[in-house]
Amino acid sequence: MNSPHVVRHKSLVEREDREKLHGHKGAVLWFTGLSASGKSTLSHMVEKRLYVMGASTYVFDGDNVRHGLCGDLGFSEKDRVENIRRIGEMVRLFVDAGIIALTAFISPFRADRQNVKTRMGDDRFVEIFVDCPLETCIARDPKGIYARALRGEIKDFTGISSPYEPPENADIVIRSDRESFDEAVSKILEFLKQKNLIFQE
Amino acid sequence: MNSPHVVRHKSLVEREDREKLHGHKGAVLWFTGLSASGKSTLSHMVEKRLYVMGASTYVFDGDNVRHGLCGDLGFSEKDRVENIRRIGEMVRLFVDAGIIALTAFISPFRADRQNVKTRMGDDRFVEIFVDCPLETCIARDPKGIYARALRGEIKDFTGISSPYEPPENADIVIRSDRESFDEAVSKILEFLKQKNLIFQE
Repeated sequence: MNSPHVVRHKSLVEREDREKLHGHKGAVLWFTGLSASGKSTLSHMVEKRLYVMGASTYVFDGDNVRHGLCGDLGFSEKDRVENIRRIGEMVRLFVDAGIIALTAFISPFRADRQNVKTRMGDDRFVEIFVDCPLETCIARDPKGIYARALRGEIKDFTGISSPYEPPENADIVIRSDRESFDEAVSKILEFLKQKNLIFQE
Repeated sequence: MNSPHVVRHKSLVEREDREKLHGHKGAVLWFTGLSASGKSTLSHMVEKRLYVMGASTYVFDGDNVRHGLCGDLGFSEKDRVENIRRIGEMVRLFVDAGIIALTAFISPFRADRQNVKTRMGDDRFVEIFVDCPLETCIARDPKGIYARALRGEIKDFTGISSPYEPPENADIVIRSDRESFDEAVSKILEFLKQKNLIFQE
């Protein structure tokens, strides 16, 4: 927005300075997958490993976003698009702050994920597809929400009454029904090292 | 929002852990004041001092928020309220991430600032009133926007065609027409030390 209200100021501390301070790059690990696929558990486990290595991290999930920044949004397709847009814009600033941000949202639409990636820059956006067959997610159903969705009690529920578009070129694919969480965490850490987003332990 | 879509997960890394890593507390330095009062310049100078001390920081201003997270909002009273609400919610997560966030927005309405403070917690919200007489701001007018507002070319311009409600109990007041920026920076750093938000140099 080219608004007369906004005057551009020069930063005295840049992303590179903050990355130097933190000892790693700013990046987002964008977990996507069905409900109950293991995104949130996995993201918290990766954060823990990164923290132990001395990295500055933050996990975003429904708990800390849906009640706050996006508390005015519902679950219609339009609101889901806006939800992911806002999360993407917020996370972009965390990355600029030199943080490793981990996001655990279903984020079912390919175009929305692509928009975030484009805004962020390819080299700072790591797409992690937590791939788990729908029937396994339904069998897990830790809170009985699939059961309710299957009974038609929940509108627009991804996988049941709303589509999930799997990534076509995810940076990392985790088959959470076949791989252990520990294996998955190691695979993600290895990727970050190869891309020089974090330094060797 | 108590939604069936949101399942609560346990964090393995808490704010206290991240604060320990960073060596200081998470907090927001909320600068408020008229356009051209010096908020943005001052916030960048404080960030630089904090960075040199080894603190993890980030400055939010119109540049990085108005084009992104709040790119869909205008400058009507309703949109300004939503603008500050979103910034407040985002900054709350930065504070949870153990960052010292500095915000440089006019944020003209007392109730909006109070809402952010209430959501954040009193001890993590430092309100800094950059107090400068309107006539001085008009005389500075670095981009000629006051001139345009006075000619009626800009709607809802704070101080001219939209009210500014000064803080009644700011933690710090800077008279930017009387104090030098260096004096103001030192005053702010001193306050942060006294409150144990940062550690002694």
